[in-house]
Amino acid sequence: MSRSKFQKILVAQGGGPTAVINQSLAGIALEARKVPDIEAVYGAFHGVRGIVNQDLIDLGKEKKETLEGVAETPAAALGSTRDKPDQAYCQEIFRVVRAHGIGAFFYIGGNDSADTVRIVSEAARAANYPLRCIHVPKTIDNDLMVNDHTPGFPSAARFVAQAFMGADLDNASLPGVYIGVVMGRHAGFLTAAAAMAKTEAGGGPHLIYLPERPFDLPSFFRDVKANMERHGRCIVAVSEGIADAKGVPVATTLTAHIQKDAHGNVELGGGALADYLGKAVKDTLGFKRVRGDTFGYLQRSFAGCASDVDQREARAAGEKALQFALQEDRDGSVTIHRAAGASYSANYQFTALEQLAGKTRHMPDEFIAASGADVTDAFRQYLAPLLGSGLPKIQRLQRHKVAAIAGDAQ
Amino acid sequence: MSRSKFQKILVAQGGGPTAVINQSLAGIALEARKVPDIEAVYGAFHGVRGIVNQDLIDLGKEKKETLEGVAETPAAALGSTRDKPDQAYCQEIFRVVRAHGIGAFFYIGGNDSADTVRIVSEAARAANYPLRCIHVPKTIDNDLMVNDHTPGFPSAARFVAQAFMGADLDNASLPGVYIGVVMGRHAGFLTAAAAMAKTEAGGGPHLIYLPERPFDLPSFFRDVKANMERHGRCIVAVSEGIADAKGVPVATTLTAHIQKDAHGNVELGGGALADYLGKAVKDTLGFKRVRGDTFGYLQRSFAGCASDVDQREARAAGEKALQFALQEDRDGSVTIHRAAGASYSANYQFTALEQLAGKTRHMPDEFIAASGADVTDAFRQYLAPLLGSGLPKIQRLQRHKVAAIAGDAQ
Repeated sequence: MSRSKFQKILVAQGGGPTAVINQSLAGIALEARKVPDIEAVYGAFHGVRGIVNQDLIDLGKEKKETLEGVAETPAAALGSTRDKPDQAYCQEIFRVVRAHGIGAFFYIGGNDSADTVRIVSEAARAANYPLRCIHVPKTIDNDLMVNDHTPGFPSAARFVAQAFMGADLDNASLPGVYIGVVMGRHAGFLTAAAAMAKTEAGGGPHLIYLPERPFDLPSFFRDVKANMERHGRCIVAVSEGIADAKGVPVATTLTAHIQKDAHGNVELGGGALADYLGKAVKDTLGFKRVRGDTFGYLQRSFAGCASDVDQREARAAGEKALQFALQEDRDGSVTIHRAAGASYSANYQFTALEQLAGKTRHMPDEFIAASGADVTDAFRQYLAPLLGSGLPKIQRLQRHKVAAIAGDAQ
Repeated sequence: MSRSKFQKILVAQGGGPTAVINQSLAGIALEARKVPDIEAVYGAFHGVRGIVNQDLIDLGKEKKETLEGVAETPAAALGSTRDKPDQAYCQEIFRVVRAHGIGAFFYIGGNDSADTVRIVSEAARAANYPLRCIHVPKTIDNDLMVNDHTPGFPSAARFVAQAFMGADLDNASLPGVYIGVVMGRHAGFLTAAAAMAKTEAGGGPHLIYLPERPFDLPSFFRDVKANMERHGRCIVAVSEGIADAKGVPVATTLTAHIQKDAHGNVELGGGALADYLGKAVKDTLGFKRVRGDTFGYLQRSFAGCASDVDQREARAAGEKALQFALQEDRDGSVTIHRAAGASYSANYQFTALEQLAGKTRHMPDEFIAASGADVTDAFRQYLAPLLGSGLPKIQRLQRHKVAAIAGDAQ
């Protein structure tokens, strides 16, 4: 085999962290140790910014045990950024990677990070600098095109499922309306994961509102009222990105100061949406016990709730990234696909950056119930194998009724 | 041994559910099966209300495997209530328990539920009805007098610790100010548990605000600013119950409609406090990236985050409750105490209801740092053995720096 096209590689992480993004980092770093031609694996702190700032570490000097421990630790071990490089930024990147003789750049991130890889890739070609640019997928939003699903999503989905399992039982204990607001600016996958918490007929979540369907208050009130009448309680999963028929997010109408990040994404954080919907239910429907939670950063960073399937796949995505970089004569993104067959398995392909950079994948129609406020069995079948092993088992009492006192109505 | 004073017993659950309240239920029900004299174990749905409503089930007919599964399931399997019985309510209770020949009443709950047991106990004595009344401790707030700690608290504390572990790593990835608001109306134990997430020098949480110390915005701003200057980021744990020097909760000044439950407790829920503090930091200190989460119901109901120590102790509290009911000739509460010795172990005593009914235990001074915005090592030593086994291990990179390009400042 001929000498590989690069001897030094650089890894960085971009966008919102996940529970398994470090698995991909470890996958790249440890896979590189199997390749004799690769002399150095550098890591840049806080994404592309760490390259420009020369905030670099030598991952080759990290012990294997350290990398294995880091792989199991949530959030980005190399730090992250939401910087979007322009041409000047790219030239700064090239100055640094050229000085260090770096021949391949691996960026672990979502659709904005894929766009960063595309920008750097195109700028490198234009500058005639031989830099192999590889995007490694990661996002709890599960909104990367081409992919069946993305590393980080299954673990966040598991958190959401476990949260709604508990919220449903808690609400059954003290009945009322419960509204849980879940991350997902444009794609409803993570909110839809709440459906996996339903462990008995009539149990919650009873309603699931996704950004893929227009949200309007009268329908919401009607749906909540119907469930309260039927079950005496109502568990609602709401995406932070729900929007009206004109596409205006409900949350933006509540926020006085709208923040945008460098990629133009509106920040929808804070507890306002849950509080607003809760108050609306109280005021309009008159139900007394209405509670709302905003899952916020807990759902993407909680330590100790990763899906083992997700961990293995994120690791494999990193390993495959290095293999593709060596085998392929082009830049691209590692994409995850579901193998045909009765039992679940994933495979990995190498996809042109243009197919996913800066684009958003939405929940397909076959995953959304006709009501617009629930998911389908197809979605449950899609998600079930991703959540991993050891999910909590919910057990309820069999409830053998005791007869009322003779003469009393029960 | 003479025939026991009662042949039929009744169990119910009160107040906010926990991750292990069903362990105590299973403890009572399964321990009762060892006593030949006990002919029936009934459960009332939704606490004392279930007695009045004759919403009773026969727990003796539940399979052992079902009860074991229920024990591992969070939230109150029998449902809960916040009803506080008056004299008329008590007479309704006696009518039902008399008709069923019930001789002992076990109520699993916090200080309000202990007060309910006291009320029922006194009313039974006044009515000359021979009802043995036993309170079994439970509360995530850890605010029951006499007890070293209370079942439910260790599991909620574990959730809070794991949440802040992840939040700290997430914030290190994308630095800024993070504010996590934790439950605990009057007692800061659960908020203080955030301290267990600190896994490196300079790591978060950097500030912990408890209801036991007056909160004022200028000190808060000064503390946050100091940490931002020192670490470039700041993780803050805030109790929902923080109050100013006059004792007025900060949250109540933010809530237009103050709700009170039957026990006179003000409801402090919603995301307003986190949003308010976050906005105040942004506006006053000018830091751009400020995020806030309100842990809300997640921290008390999340499925799959129980402390195994907590599970065992909650089970033991239920078993001991039955044993005390048989052995003692008085009503009372099972209390948990820490055995002297180098390694942690708990023991159980039987305490008069008056000593804890309706009373609130606060964080002792030796658990609160002199700064008023942190805990002491004594608190960490107190909490560490309660969190149980298998806590997430946080591993960071060793970070072997790469030298800057010759001539460049780094």
